[in-house]
Amino acid sequence: MTIGSEIHGWVTDLFPLCRSITGDGIRESLRYLQRILPEMKIHGVSSGTRVFDWTVPLEWNIKDAFIANEGGERVVDLSQNNLHVVNYSEPIDEWMTFEELDRNLHSLPDQPDAVPYVTSYYRRRWGFCLTHRLRDQLRQEPFRRYHVKIDTTLESGELIYGELILPGSTSREILLSTYLCHPSMANDNLSGPCVQAAVARWLRDFVPDRRMTYRILFLAETIGPLAYLKRHLETLQENLVAGFVLACIGDDRRYSFVASRSGSTTADRVVRHILRHDHPDHDEYSFVDRGSDERQYCSPGVDLPVCTLMRSKFDTFPEYHTSKDDLAFVTPSGLEGGYRLVRECLGLIEELGPYRCRTIGEPHLSTRGLYPDFGLRDSWTKVRTMMNLLAYSDGHHDLIDIADLLEIDARELVVVARDLVDHGVLELDLPS
Amino acid sequence: MTIGSEIHGWVTDLFPLCRSITGDGIRESLRYLQRILPEMKIHGVSSGTRVFDWTVPLEWNIKDAFIANEGGERVVDLSQNNLHVVNYSEPIDEWMTFEELDRNLHSLPDQPDAVPYVTSYYRRRWGFCLTHRLRDQLRQEPFRRYHVKIDTTLESGELIYGELILPGSTSREILLSTYLCHPSMANDNLSGPCVQAAVARWLRDFVPDRRMTYRILFLAETIGPLAYLKRHLETLQENLVAGFVLACIGDDRRYSFVASRSGSTTADRVVRHILRHDHPDHDEYSFVDRGSDERQYCSPGVDLPVCTLMRSKFDTFPEYHTSKDDLAFVTPSGLEGGYRLVRECLGLIEELGPYRCRTIGEPHLSTRGLYPDFGLRDSWTKVRTMMNLLAYSDGHHDLIDIADLLEIDARELVVVARDLVDHGVLELDLPS
Amino acid sequence: MTIGSEIHGWVTDLFPLCRSITGDGIRESLRYLQRILPEMKIHGVSSGTRVFDWTVPLEWNIKDAFIANEGGERVVDLSQNNLHVVNYSEPIDEWMTFEELDRNLHSLPDQPDAVPYVTSYYRRRWGFCLTHRLRDQLRQEPFRRYHVKIDTTLESGELIYGELILPGSTSREILLSTYLCHPSMANDNLSGPCVQAAVARWLRDFVPDRRMTYRILFLAETIGPLAYLKRHLETLQENLVAGFVLACIGDDRRYSFVASRSGSTTADRVVRHILRHDHPDHDEYSFVDRGSDERQYCSPGVDLPVCTLMRSKFDTFPEYHTSKDDLAFVTPSGLEGGYRLVRECLGLIEELGPYRCRTIGEPHLSTRGLYPDFGLRDSWTKVRTMMNLLAYSDGHHDLIDIADLLEIDARELVVVARDLVDHGVLELDLPS
Repeated sequence: MTIGSEIHGWVTDLFPLCRSITGDGIRESLRYLQRILPEMKIHGVSSGTRVFDWTVPLEWNIKDAFIANEGGERVVDLSQNNLHVVNYSEPIDEWMTFEELDRNLHSLPDQPDAVPYVTSYYRRRWGFCLTHRLRDQLRQEPFRRYHVKIDTTLESGELIYGELILPGSTSREILLSTYLCHPSMANDNLSGPCVQAAVARWLRDFVPDRRMTYRILFLAETIGPLAYLKRHLETLQENLVAGFVLACIGDDRRYSFVASRSGSTTADRVVRHILRHDHPDHDEYSFVDRGSDERQYCSPGVDLPVCTLMRSKFDTFPEYHTSKDDLAFVTPSGLEGGYRLVRECLGLIEELGPYRCRTIGEPHLSTRGLYPDFGLRDSWTKVRTMMNLLAYSDGHHDLIDIADLLEIDARELVVVARDLVDHGVLELDLPS
Repeated sequence: MTIGSEIHGWVTDLFPLCRSITGDGIRESLRYLQRILPEMKIHGVSSGTRVFDWTVPLEWNIKDAFIANEGGERVVDLSQNNLHVVNYSEPIDEWMTFEELDRNLHSLPDQPDAVPYVTSYYRRRWGFCLTHRLRDQLRQEPFRRYHVKIDTTLESGELIYGELILPGSTSREILLSTYLCHPSMANDNLSGPCVQAAVARWLRDFVPDRRMTYRILFLAETIGPLAYLKRHLETLQENLVAGFVLACIGDDRRYSFVASRSGSTTADRVVRHILRHDHPDHDEYSFVDRGSDERQYCSPGVDLPVCTLMRSKFDTFPEYHTSKDDLAFVTPSGLEGGYRLVRECLGLIEELGPYRCRTIGEPHLSTRGLYPDFGLRDSWTKVRTMMNLLAYSDGHHDLIDIADLLEIDARELVVVARDLVDHGVLELDLPS
Repeated sequence: MTIGSEIHGWVTDLFPLCRSITGDGIRESLRYLQRILPEMKIHGVSSGTRVFDWTVPLEWNIKDAFIANEGGERVVDLSQNNLHVVNYSEPIDEWMTFEELDRNLHSLPDQPDAVPYVTSYYRRRWGFCLTHRLRDQLRQEPFRRYHVKIDTTLESGELIYGELILPGSTSREILLSTYLCHPSMANDNLSGPCVQAAVARWLRDFVPDRRMTYRILFLAETIGPLAYLKRHLETLQENLVAGFVLACIGDDRRYSFVASRSGSTTADRVVRHILRHDHPDHDEYSFVDRGSDERQYCSPGVDLPVCTLMRSKFDTFPEYHTSKDDLAFVTPSGLEGGYRLVRECLGLIEELGPYRCRTIGEPHLSTRGLYPDFGLRDSWTKVRTMMNLLAYSDGHHDLIDIADLLEIDARELVVVARDLVDHGVLELDLPS
């Protein structure tokens, strides 16, 4: 089985759960991921806790929701699709005419066969989402009466999140963060958590000599990072080298990323370099086009070096936040491409430098067997890359700086740099 | 009556006075402006006072000046046009042939019907200016004799200037400066003082809640700012946010400005932004093309954030420094346009920021009624401007930075910023 | 005799000597230059001395070298061309077949009539260089036997170099550095030492009032600068304003230079400005294309402001490192052009500034006779250059900054600046 198929399997398993920012949906989802990553801890923040300008809301749970006609037939039913209920709806159990009901319905006239995804976390209300086609049909009989029932609870509980720390040989950190609060949509947002789980497993199992410490988070969007930052902001500001939010990373379309607020952090530079070389047809979005948890990580006073990795950018593809974002929209190859992009970024940061030449003047390469045997002109070009790496390794230029100068892929320099470190002529600094 | 017509009336009243850098012409002109702005103080600096590398000259006054033929007919007469006498001429009362007289005449072969404006403040001499057409005519009889009389005095007195301080709620300052020493030319230079007087009256009467303290100066060109800087340089260097020299700001042609020496001060950025949005066809001149009092305000060791606002730039239009720069060349609409440009610049600086978000992470907008009621995709675009303003309000980006990033007019952000300040999520810093 | 012919004469005299990085060839060459520059000192560093990551090698001397056939006829003979022996060959005196000999031969298939230049300083071996045409001919009889003799010694001795310090009125320094270790090639490398000697003589004899102290070095390439830096690095890092390596500077083709590592030192800025104005068709190479002693001078931890001046860049012209780089390839006019380029660069650095205006506000020019007599518009343009120089002389902008701003040649400002210094309104700072 390919890694892409395996990730797609996880997406498929998690798809039916009715997640929200709190409640049993996200709890069961985290427990599922814990089976892949048993080292992951699940932490909670109590309802009512202040997190900066926000307050953790009551925990929301749902048992049932439907609109039934007088014959008892459910014309809209939660069990058919978790999107049918406005997420965080308060309970209701009433009879009313369609005309009365219609004020609480949501549909998409432009996409008559899609059920939209609507939430109302911070204002109490109730509502249903349905296809515009069905709504138009029901509209034919405005005075017909319906049994409208939403069986939800809003009670004091917890905002929970998953946290996996994979220690490296240094305290310099890389953050991977994704959100896990959307019900029954595959790209937004099961692709992010499932790709992130696969990357975490790879780091744990196949990168034992990692230099960086990895902080890997599965959170509710927006309130999740805020609650986490409330607890860990200073540590992150002190140690974070680069962070990546994973979002909408499982479809088969072009790669893209949202730059950090400054646009020039290590995170931005690494993603930009990798995408330019591996996927020249990618899209770069400015922070002005942000929309996921980079909003909090890069906000004034937080200012972490974080950008968001995606394939199709949220809010730009027609399937976004509708029932069309389904298990066919994300693919094994799409997910595997996202997984590989993240791995490439992390791999490069581990080796990024800057490096520092340990000699004054050029090192004497031939005593170390690093110089080609004979001084004929033809051999010269063969050592140029090595010589250039040495010439610019002044503790200020990292591999991306040098690669861009030489118009090559920074990953070509990684092997050369390792060899020079092994020969004692270069030493590695960690990115600041 | 429009404000433009009112300003044009002031220009018309001041036109006949025979101004120079000292003497009764500028004294009467300042007294006229004092009737509009009674709070304005008139200060003096004694002749002979050292101001940096310069010395305040003797006070010059003129009673009469003419060239008369043997029949007593005045062929050139000060009472016809103040430009006829070289400004700061020493006295003379002699008979001489045209051939002798001709060495002291000035005319413009290219503009045979215009009388040029010539000065000689720092070297004692006398002279007359006349049309080239008349000079050519007089040249026909080179040995004809003329009575040449200039009735001037050069005596110890004062260099005077007008100063109006309009205090704001802070000590941060905006400087408006114009010169008032040219006789009987309308654009250069009555447009500057009269527009500046109108702006000062508007600030006093209609901007009672101004944050900035306004320092508004009416001076003799060059020696005036030097004398003023000698007294107030430290205060200005400590407090000045932006300054504007007003010059040639009353004709109906394109808007323009001369940038400060650095080209990137708050003054430059504000003018550039306003002109780009309101008058895309304006001209920007580098400091290399300077020519008015920005020369002193931006000189090494002074280095104030000052640029010069104009419509037709001095030294570029054919009427410049000739009798053609008359009451028809400046117009009510031209003057009003200049007045509005200055107002727009000052208005933007008052609100410019930078602003600082008062929360860590995004503020919770919906509890403050700032977020649209429902999370449907369509509503999202409506709050983007507000969200972007918040996201970049880190105490370093002012409204121009953010507007340029969003490719909008900074004035669109002013209302949004005020609203966010009122809701307690933003606070305003003053520009540094 | 032109200076170009004189320099070409020196090249011709030095051409026959069999130079290497140590030994009598470079010793005699330095003594020849000492006859032109008697003040030049010759210093030595003993074999075996550690210089940073390198070790000074044994001194190499050669008496004879040949390949002779059984009839005693020398088919390859050092006395015909110093390039015939691999530089630093160990001694050998054996009979062998051509087939055995062939492994130690070097020739250029693409240039069958040229003898290549090959060295092996740091690995003991022996070898001969010959034309590919001759090699092909000898190959016809692979089993023919030859007497192969190289009469060299490798003994403890010295690495020597020439150093001429021409003191100026300040301790700020300019470095001129060239290498002198290549045998019997004219452009690479006799052009550098001979042009440098001519420039040194000019500085000594015709620039008695120089402000800068000139440090003029004639060294073996690579190991020479390293040995010199080992002794003088701190002094250079403290005092050096700009340095130039002279290489391949005597042919008649385009001018070029290799920028320093940062690309923006005073050395780079001066060369770039002079070449842009005097030789718009020059080539600028990045430090990535380095190859001479700028490699050491700009290496991490050394970081001196040094770039390399050339006509045809080393390693780009077909004659490079072959017997075709002969006395016809360099010309009097080519050498004289190189000499003039260096002089122009040094002349500009002496006057470069930055300058500082000694007044606050504009200086009063007319009291000093610096302002044209009459304020008519026509005269204005005449003083603009002077006024602009004053307006930007804030102690931060040097003549190149100001000239680039005014889009003129910085050398046009030199005369103006001197005049203003003489009148006491400007003062000169030395470049940092």
